[in-house]
Amino acid sequence: MTTDTMSPKITVELLRQLRQAMKNSKYITEPIQAYIVPSGDAHQSEYIAPCDCRREFICGFNGSAGTAIVTEQHAALWTDGRYFLQASQQMDNNWTLMKMGLKETPSQEDWLISVLPENSKVGVDPWIIAADQWKNMSKALSGAGHSLVAVQDNLIDAIWENRPSRPSTKLTALALKYTGFTWQDKITTLRGKMSERKISWFVVTALDEIAWLFNLRGSDIEYNPVFFAYAIIGMSSIRLFVDSKRLSDPAIREHLELDSPSKPDLSVQCFPYESVYTELQAVCAALEPKDKMWICDKASCALTQAIPKSHRSAIPYTPLCLAKAVKNATEIQGMKMAHIKDAVALCELFAWLEKEIPKGTVTEISAADKAEELRSQQKEFVGLSFPTISSVGPNGAIIHYRPLPETNRTLSLNEVYLIDSGAQYIDGTTDVTRTVHFGTPSEYEKECFTYVLKGHIAVSAAVFPNGTKGHLLDSFARAALWDSGLDYLHGTGHGVGCFLNVHEGPCGISYKTFADEPLEAGMIVSDEPGYYEDGSFGIRLENVVLVVPATTKYNYRNRGSLTFEPLTLVPIQLKMINTDLLTQKERDWVNDYHRKCRETIGAELERQGRKEARDWLIRETQPIV
Amino acid sequence: MTTDTMSPKITVELLRQLRQAMKNSKYITEPIQAYIVPSGDAHQSEYIAPCDCRREFICGFNGSAGTAIVTEQHAALWTDGRYFLQASQQMDNNWTLMKMGLKETPSQEDWLISVLPENSKVGVDPWIIAADQWKNMSKALSGAGHSLVAVQDNLIDAIWENRPSRPSTKLTALALKYTGFTWQDKITTLRGKMSERKISWFVVTALDEIAWLFNLRGSDIEYNPVFFAYAIIGMSSIRLFVDSKRLSDPAIREHLELDSPSKPDLSVQCFPYESVYTELQAVCAALEPKDKMWICDKASCALTQAIPKSHRSAIPYTPLCLAKAVKNATEIQGMKMAHIKDAVALCELFAWLEKEIPKGTVTEISAADKAEELRSQQKEFVGLSFPTISSVGPNGAIIHYRPLPETNRTLSLNEVYLIDSGAQYIDGTTDVTRTVHFGTPSEYEKECFTYVLKGHIAVSAAVFPNGTKGHLLDSFARAALWDSGLDYLHGTGHGVGCFLNVHEGPCGISYKTFADEPLEAGMIVSDEPGYYEDGSFGIRLENVVLVVPATTKYNYRNRGSLTFEPLTLVPIQLKMINTDLLTQKERDWVNDYHRKCRETIGAELERQGRKEARDWLIRETQPIV
Repeated sequence: MTTDTMSPKITVELLRQLRQAMKNSKYITEPIQAYIVPSGDAHQSEYIAPCDCRREFICGFNGSAGTAIVTEQHAALWTDGRYFLQASQQMDNNWTLMKMGLKETPSQEDWLISVLPENSKVGVDPWIIAADQWKNMSKALSGAGHSLVAVQDNLIDAIWENRPSRPSTKLTALALKYTGFTWQDKITTLRGKMSERKISWFVVTALDEIAWLFNLRGSDIEYNPVFFAYAIIGMSSIRLFVDSKRLSDPAIREHLELDSPSKPDLSVQCFPYESVYTELQAVCAALEPKDKMWICDKASCALTQAIPKSHRSAIPYTPLCLAKAVKNATEIQGMKMAHIKDAVALCELFAWLEKEIPKGTVTEISAADKAEELRSQQKEFVGLSFPTISSVGPNGAIIHYRPLPETNRTLSLNEVYLIDSGAQYIDGTTDVTRTVHFGTPSEYEKECFTYVLKGHIAVSAAVFPNGTKGHLLDSFARAALWDSGLDYLHGTGHGVGCFLNVHEGPCGISYKTFADEPLEAGMIVSDEPGYYEDGSFGIRLENVVLVVPATTKYNYRNRGSLTFEPLTLVPIQLKMINTDLLTQKERDWVNDYHRKCRETIGAELERQGRKEARDWLIRETQPIV
Repeated sequence: MTTDTMSPKITVELLRQLRQAMKNSKYITEPIQAYIVPSGDAHQSEYIAPCDCRREFICGFNGSAGTAIVTEQHAALWTDGRYFLQASQQMDNNWTLMKMGLKETPSQEDWLISVLPENSKVGVDPWIIAADQWKNMSKALSGAGHSLVAVQDNLIDAIWENRPSRPSTKLTALALKYTGFTWQDKITTLRGKMSERKISWFVVTALDEIAWLFNLRGSDIEYNPVFFAYAIIGMSSIRLFVDSKRLSDPAIREHLELDSPSKPDLSVQCFPYESVYTELQAVCAALEPKDKMWICDKASCALTQAIPKSHRSAIPYTPLCLAKAVKNATEIQGMKMAHIKDAVALCELFAWLEKEIPKGTVTEISAADKAEELRSQQKEFVGLSFPTISSVGPNGAIIHYRPLPETNRTLSLNEVYLIDSGAQYIDGTTDVTRTVHFGTPSEYEKECFTYVLKGHIAVSAAVFPNGTKGHLLDSFARAALWDSGLDYLHGTGHGVGCFLNVHEGPCGISYKTFADEPLEAGMIVSDEPGYYEDGSFGIRLENVVLVVPATTKYNYRNRGSLTFEPLTLVPIQLKMINTDLLTQKERDWVNDYHRKCRETIGAELERQGRKEARDWLIRETQPIV
């Protein structure tokens, strides 16, 4: 993305134009006093295509989460703890940074109510605000005498010269050896769930759900192997909305059986991407009174409101979201293989860094590039799963930092180095963070690292009953930090897709209690506590872990227990650990983990003939005594 | 309550009558296919007066939480894990027990949808269903083609012969030395919060909020020093709805300054309890368009809907609820004194039990009576704060057990004894659970007790940042149990009132993420993990703890940290602990706790000349090595 920069974007002129558009009868019937610019696209994607980076366009901040609101007098941006530093650096002083999660920070609703003149109209594009957010915002505003109005023409697009066009990349069909189930199997299972709940239609809007359902991948959004599409699934029909020229590919036609469907109710009808609204209206017009239609409450307000309320069943997460989260045996095997390849690349990277850093020529950017190069040598590599966070010293404290020429620091023997990176392989997605020191870390750095490690272990080794929601584990990751008055302002873990988005629902580990589903065997999440000392250093320790059944001494009410198995197998730097702060159980965990790294990754390094990395691995996995 | 029994109530005839009433045009315009009988009264009280025990009347189950639903064919009761055993014993086989919290248990909505014929009407008394419950239920039912209808005449009352009348006990005014603030101070603070949020009216419906606000206490509901009342607070008026004969007491008239108000906007207008609806309608009729009225979303549907939607601001908890939860210095001092007196009584009880049990004459009931007798000897004793749970062996596994003649077991040297009890003193409310063995506990009992103790300590000693919600601490209490495949099916802690309800919001420690507010210094909660082996024994260890600032090595972002200080100072039986399972930190915690018990309670026992109990205390607080 060419817009990446850490110097503030000058927004005086853009804000002037936007404020004019807010009064321009070309776009709106009555002037609006505020305009909300959400972060997402029409599919509520976290990562978005350049054509959808409207919030970044207006304010300059390009993190993955944040909402901008512009009124006649003010411009404010809400984002969370991961992005406080970055947002403050990327925005000019026309913008106020609203730090979400701090007690003194008003909600968007409360702020609007405090600054708006009486009876104001607040506008938003109904295609890029989620239905549940619309509802909450609308309720709060009308409660204070204002109103939320849908502005059909996007006002950012209206002032955006040379806005990029919507991508339409080549689609790839995934073989059964990667997916475990055909798309026909998945449709049949889905329809089973629909009929169980007496649902006759399901509007699928999340791009990763569509990609997973049809066993198709694209590259419309960087790092996310998805493609722009909608689907409307009925009990005997399947409508797929996608740019029609993509369907000229014979492999895709064959995969979807477009020319010779095996069964009539498993035949896919294709429609242009843009026709989803009118087609949905047509489907709705033909509904029987009893018919119910599922749509996610995070789907766009526009599409949601196209379904008459009496037919609409808005759900916090869809059955596809849950089905996708619980990996099948084939997917688990693929994820394990992907993590082995990924660990090989990272062991090579660290061995290389150890050798090269003393020369003073390795920078955050070149280290990230090297990591990508090493990953790309692994089989079935597709690309990165998110922009590599390669950060030295104070840059490490910027939680979602991405090195840029003007911020690029050189790796040295004197500063902590944090690298959070991952890749897409055809068999799986990875996401791993290691924090290392190539010289001698300070006692304080070691102390903080050790608290983070204790938190990481507390989650990874946790045993908990079947049915436990991930948010109940979040505090385990923080207890050691809390004891010393420390903390980190982000969640502890997120779901990870299988050759899909690196962040996915509906499970996760966070102090925020979103509508997370209970953890189940087969789910895959990250475990990534951290500690960030602004202006000094950042620490994060992240493994991707698989939920597995646990064997316990007792079994209360036959509920069964779960625990985690690390899929990430990359050594944790012993030099950063103050072993005096570890309990014997924690020391055992580290030794056991390193033994697994040595066995599994050592064998693969051997097989690939990567001797230097293997030697490095053996050195780095010596047991603690 | 005379209805207490562990044998099932025969409900054939009552259900027949209720089902007739459901079709009787005397009560309803159109027949209803289901009738919901919620647990609470018109104030959503947890404990209720006999006249409000409608759910118990219809099904026999008399626990503090549960909802009954009767259809033409079925009768079902939903309750939570504390009451599974009790409910199954108290209900006859006309009733199906729905065990909430288990995965296979349908929600009330889902169950209704699964059993109702098409287009059914489900009735409920709008005065005893909370507005938020009404909304959720109504939405779910109408989503499935049914409708929720308000039945003004309560159908249980219609078939209830000799229903008790509503209590109207003597009111007591609390002196400033107990409350710390006058009711005028509290009204002024409340109005400050109202004007901050641009709210002009506040309808107070929770009985403990009204009692706290006016520094008044009653005894309309057993164990809860509250009185039936409503209040409507405006910026310059105060309406109190209470049985008018209560205001003939000169002390109350003087306290409320009914005859000579100090300031016009602090003058209380009194109205009959029953007139709240018409008076609220009158207030609403005179509202300006901008006027907003606060009402808790847990207030009755009837009263909530009396406020036009455009003026209604429904809040999950009220500012009074929060103000009441954060105890002031006077209240904290009172709570400490109450807990010292309570510990004196309990030390005496245990010393007495140790002596008497070998004689074979002490039963669950006589032990509970003795506890009450000893408490009643303490200054400012008013009554118990809830029915004493005095349970031996298998009865201990019934979480909210109350001994009855037919279940009454004799305390012996062979079984675990669990006593969960508390009292109301004018200066504070107590709630304490101890689990002890007067002979030799089995290794398994000790093991389970020790896990529970570890959980209790993990919460009590937890250090956490300011702004942390209580539910984030719940898993600390379970980790040791979970590790061994054990758990308990109840929350870990609840807010405790100060000479008020023993259960109060808006803070608590639970795996259920209700709308809990962050813990703040001055809040008081219980810390009570447990373990229950059905048919065998129950273990619970409960202290009431005060949230206090914690001193930490570092102070991330100057947020400050909090921890807990135990107010309960009663020895934890060392005989029940397997000290091998404790860490050194946990041993230190136990020793430090026992040192405090010895110092504080020892001195008070000495002062009161209770030598035997003092000797017992000294013996029971020997340090573990």
